[in-house]
Amino acid sequence: MAHDTEVTRREILEAADELFYGVGLRAVSVDEISAKAGRTKKTVYYHFGSKDRLIAAYLEARDRPTLERFQRWAGNEGTVAERLERMFRRLGRCAKSPTWKGCGFVRATGELADSPNHPAIKIARAHKANFEKWLRENLAAEGHRDCNVLARGLMVLIDGAVTQMLLHRDASYAQAAARAAQALLRP
Amino acid sequence: MAHDTEVTRREILEAADELFYGVGLRAVSVDEISAKAGRTKKTVYYHFGSKDRLIAAYLEARDRPTLERFQRWAGNEGTVAERLERMFRRLGRCAKSPTWKGCGFVRATGELADSPNHPAIKIARAHKANFEKWLRENLAAEGHRDCNVLARGLMVLIDGAVTQMLLHRDASYAQAAARAAQALLRP
Repeated sequence: MAHDTEVTRREILEAADELFYGVGLRAVSVDEISAKAGRTKKTVYYHFGSKDRLIAAYLEARDRPTLERFQRWAGNEGTVAERLERMFRRLGRCAKSPTWKGCGFVRATGELADSPNHPAIKIARAHKANFEKWLRENLAAEGHRDCNVLARGLMVLIDGAVTQMLLHRDASYAQAAARAAQALLRP
Repeated sequence: MAHDTEVTRREILEAADELFYGVGLRAVSVDEISAKAGRTKKTVYYHFGSKDRLIAAYLEARDRPTLERFQRWAGNEGTVAERLERMFRRLGRCAKSPTWKGCGFVRATGELADSPNHPAIKIARAHKANFEKWLRENLAAEGHRDCNVLARGLMVLIDGAVTQMLLHRDASYAQAAARAAQALLRP
């Protein structure tokens, strides 16, 4: 991809992220994203084809950075339980910021609940499956049994904590989730 | 309230529930709700004042029936852990229906994430707090310690299971949540 094209694409995606994550998918128009990116609507369509594909591209661009953020929060030291405890503590701290608006993938799933085949839902599914795989591999490396069901339980705790905190803006739900994770992983 | 007024109000709310829950808050217009209810837009505004207040009224009408459905699923027999196991099993079964679109309160929280003072968010907060209170009282009656943090952990598990199932349409997340609930309540 030529340098200019890449820059344009990245700037449109940054504007899309700010508005889709900050406000919502259906509340924000391609016009608003074009204006924020300082590009014409035609340029946005040239690069992304449709609003639906732009929504999918916005989530795709969040995939790796989101997983890497949680991995960084967890760190490499200690048992899986200890790393999850750290991760939930950092998540609880993050949720206090007014710019934090929960999980973009979960919110997209909710907004697009009537379109289960939307390209963004496929990206969201792949993201969560990838996140779950990371948990499962860590559990397996530590010698847990039933790593599949344990990893699913941890995904439930992470998304549940995020959801409760978006509603109540109260980090104690992350602490409660961390405690449930400890109980779940107890031998 | 006169009988006619009550009927009109109820029919508008039924149409709002079908469209707001089935499709979304911002994707659905007052025009569409009026048409589905077989009323004029003016009548809808006469009864609810604004779209935002209609959204809040839609969630308010879901408050008690939702809690009562979960209470019915849990039943009165057995320990809290056994009742939660039953509740999660029924929730998993429910999530297989294509008309099931997750939790209306959680989805509203996501769609309105940029409006934390929206009247619907206040209703959602009150609903979840009420649900949590029911769990806390059951835990206290069974003699658990730290009922506050345990009830929060259970709320996290319920909303997390709902969220994961809306994405993957896979009831095994309800089973994974049930297992985490058992672990959390183990003495």
